[in-house]
Amino acid sequence: MELKSESRAFGGTQRVYTHDSTACGGPMTFGLYLPPAAEDGPVPVLWYLSGLTCTHENAMTKAGAQGWAAEAGIALVFPDTSPRGADVADDDAFDLGQGAGFYVNATESPWASRFRMWDYVADELPAALSQFPLDLDRQAITGHSMGGHGALTLAMRHPGRFASVSAFAPIAHPTQSDWGRKQFNAYLGDDEATWAAHDSTLLMRQGGLGVPVLIDQGTDDQFLDKLMPEALAEAMAATRQDGVFRMQKGYDHSYFFVSSFIEDHVTFHAEALFS
Amino acid sequence: MELKSESRAFGGTQRVYTHDSTACGGPMTFGLYLPPAAEDGPVPVLWYLSGLTCTHENAMTKAGAQGWAAEAGIALVFPDTSPRGADVADDDAFDLGQGAGFYVNATESPWASRFRMWDYVADELPAALSQFPLDLDRQAITGHSMGGHGALTLAMRHPGRFASVSAFAPIAHPTQSDWGRKQFNAYLGDDEATWAAHDSTLLMRQGGLGVPVLIDQGTDDQFLDKLMPEALAEAMAATRQDGVFRMQKGYDHSYFFVSSFIEDHVTFHAEALFS
Repeated sequence: MELKSESRAFGGTQRVYTHDSTACGGPMTFGLYLPPAAEDGPVPVLWYLSGLTCTHENAMTKAGAQGWAAEAGIALVFPDTSPRGADVADDDAFDLGQGAGFYVNATESPWASRFRMWDYVADELPAALSQFPLDLDRQAITGHSMGGHGALTLAMRHPGRFASVSAFAPIAHPTQSDWGRKQFNAYLGDDEATWAAHDSTLLMRQGGLGVPVLIDQGTDDQFLDKLMPEALAEAMAATRQDGVFRMQKGYDHSYFFVSSFIEDHVTFHAEALFS
Repeated sequence: MELKSESRAFGGTQRVYTHDSTACGGPMTFGLYLPPAAEDGPVPVLWYLSGLTCTHENAMTKAGAQGWAAEAGIALVFPDTSPRGADVADDDAFDLGQGAGFYVNATESPWASRFRMWDYVADELPAALSQFPLDLDRQAITGHSMGGHGALTLAMRHPGRFASVSAFAPIAHPTQSDWGRKQFNAYLGDDEATWAAHDSTLLMRQGGLGVPVLIDQGTDDQFLDKLMPEALAEAMAATRQDGVFRMQKGYDHSYFFVSSFIEDHVTFHAEALFS
């Protein structure tokens, strides 16, 4: 693992690492924020999964999470959203290929060899984090847009792993949306039965999670038709999920929306992680 | 004036405008954050001047100021750092030309016709702001790096305008630094007598400011030799300036440094603006 950069932030350290990933067949980059409390021993971890076009860096520099994580004594992990490089398959569209891994293991050509973000985020990166002062028995997860989709699906398919789950404007029902059908078809093939394991709304309908869930969604989000928040809200209520779904008046899809409510999300996760 | 974007942020609105600038001979872009309190009447203004390579956008998305400004009831103005465009003079170096206006009125070719950031920030943009719910009798100013230089020099040459002045890692003594001599020579010519009006340390030695000053500087800043904080610290103490100069252990020159201490700066300015 190679340290690419290190900056002091809110009394802790914001680092960026690259490492060789078996899952993704090449180098992967991630950000790690260690709060001041990590100097005294292992701290809980909050995963932040990012959205379309983002690298590890966008949320790290724009979401404003570090100050609240420092106060709570929680580490933050910012994975990249796909493998990258000249030797990695890509597409001209911003919502397919590099920057758009969708947190699945691709089975179709040309993606299958490298686009295995599900295994990377669920298994390989957590194992690689064991060298840091992190208490991996206390994890929580959040994400934005495609990353909200990733956070919800990872949590629902790993019951017991995360103490709490949240999302900002998640892609909530990808099997029925332009943000989902196109990518699942490319990455997973045209057998829609394989897609269901990556749809938060469908997973939620099967019983949801035994831990609390917090969802924030802006009413002025420019991608509401692709996100389909109403499907997830209905599924959460129908399955009696312990959770809060907030429609935030006037907010759009940007990091201004994320940063406006990140304090609430970190506080929400801290309550679960330290209870 | 044309509204380019608008996002809800911390209960207020983050907007970006372009307008035709007489000072800079063409279109200029700036960010304006209006806190929730602006819905009830004019609010005080905190200027944020940015550093080399930055546009109006960097601090707007990375400094983390809006949350604290919302809480304090203060508007934020984020000017660009130079005129821009294919028809605007530029240089291959990142520290000259577009993105590097240095908050001076250039007198030398090819810069003189457009690089008049002093007049733009001191006179033209404040006048253009009169259409917004801002109380321009209550202004404060801050900035980062080249923007810290701009904030300090603008404040010292406009006594009585700003209730308080702060800076993050300012270019503190540009007449004696690689960040200053090169640019002043290009923009102002080789008569060094004209440079002194744009050097915070020299201006501070002439008596400083009748209002409080807060300076933060990281000990691990990669540009310490160009910033010369020791010159400004000495001048502040020698002239008995009401102020605080903080060396922050371990912090570098990045926005992680700025965002770590922006709460302190907004609080500092709020105390002056609302007293």
